[in-house]
Amino acid sequence: MAERFGRRVPEPTVARLPVYQRVLHELARQSVATVSSAELADACGLNAAKVRKDLSHFGTYGTRGTGYDVDYLLCQIQRELGLDRERAVVMAGMGHLGHALARSPGFVASGFRIVGLFDVATSTIGEIVSGVRVSHVSELDAVCRQQDVPIGIITTPAVVAQDVCDRMADAGVSAILNFAPTVLTAPPSVQVRHVDFSAELQVLAFYQAHPEEGAGRSEAVARLGS
Amino acid sequence: MAERFGRRVPEPTVARLPVYQRVLHELARQSVATVSSAELADACGLNAAKVRKDLSHFGTYGTRGTGYDVDYLLCQIQRELGLDRERAVVMAGMGHLGHALARSPGFVASGFRIVGLFDVATSTIGEIVSGVRVSHVSELDAVCRQQDVPIGIITTPAVVAQDVCDRMADAGVSAILNFAPTVLTAPPSVQVRHVDFSAELQVLAFYQAHPEEGAGRSEAVARLGS
Repeated sequence: MAERFGRRVPEPTVARLPVYQRVLHELARQSVATVSSAELADACGLNAAKVRKDLSHFGTYGTRGTGYDVDYLLCQIQRELGLDRERAVVMAGMGHLGHALARSPGFVASGFRIVGLFDVATSTIGEIVSGVRVSHVSELDAVCRQQDVPIGIITTPAVVAQDVCDRMADAGVSAILNFAPTVLTAPPSVQVRHVDFSAELQVLAFYQAHPEEGAGRSEAVARLGS
Repeated sequence: MAERFGRRVPEPTVARLPVYQRVLHELARQSVATVSSAELADACGLNAAKVRKDLSHFGTYGTRGTGYDVDYLLCQIQRELGLDRERAVVMAGMGHLGHALARSPGFVASGFRIVGLFDVATSTIGEIVSGVRVSHVSELDAVCRQQDVPIGIITTPAVVAQDVCDRMADAGVSAILNFAPTVLTAPPSVQVRHVDFSAELQVLAFYQAHPEEGAGRSEAVARLGS
């Protein structure tokens, strides 16, 4: 994409792609054929100019008076997000959070397929979660190598997260989503994203402390389909 | 704030405040006294101009050649985020996700205090999680009213999330963080933010599908303190 259009897609645009994807998916489910940039903007809690700018990064322009073809745009955004092909995922740490995530309907719907679940607790090993048997973390390396797994999710306690991160990096995982409340170091070839629940709560608290700032996009997303 | 500076704080700036807060908190813990916009930008994975712009929304300007006073800036951002005072939170849905969140160290560290946990399962009611006894959801209304609770978290299955949302709104909760994979409707006076795990995974997949786009800010945040 950078090559096609000669510049990087801005990170805020990338972060909005899942929002567009979710909204378009809902529209497609409702058999809506076309959507204007104003309607799409409203459903996403953005302004129409920003939506047009975002989508123009991908060479997509709506038709004046008609708007965007929902199915085509959805397909295009899913391709940009790499959701047009299934991606294998492993997860280490099968406590409450690991169980919750592994059972989350969003994973499968987004094209992610769990191929390995790992822990060290004998009480959990052998359990079947979402159709996958929980294995000892010592088997992580073999599973990742055999299936060429690109994505790892860390839901362990903070104290062992770095060890798991090292194991995943050694096994060829190139992108890690870290839910453990700790800072991880990984080789430059491995991308690490940190998910922090309390950050969401903090943003909510900000808008509550400053009601004049408005409620932010998520409320608008939540209005869609109501 | 809107009044003080005559315009809204842009939502991307608000979304970055928890990142600044986390990075500054880590710097303060390491007894770092001052930080330049370039250093702060590097730790947050942003450019220095954006950091200066973001902070200028709050009337904060660093000293040329010295930078920002870490403790003062941290204090200021925490105040902006409303983290300088404790906020009462209730949570409904004590399955795996509810347990994981209620036990998350990030909650307490961010100034949130759980005053009520609710479910409908007799197997869970009466259990003590993070020092709070799980009650039947029919008690949610009384707890919220008695303690004037501003924030609710929904971690129920999708099918009952709207009912819980209605109960919270009726009980005076004005901000809801929804982890249930469904669209909620609430009165305009109630802010709803939807947290979607798979969106994080989708952004990760985007950068993996387009390595030329760079890895995004979270990797940079993860480098801090390494």
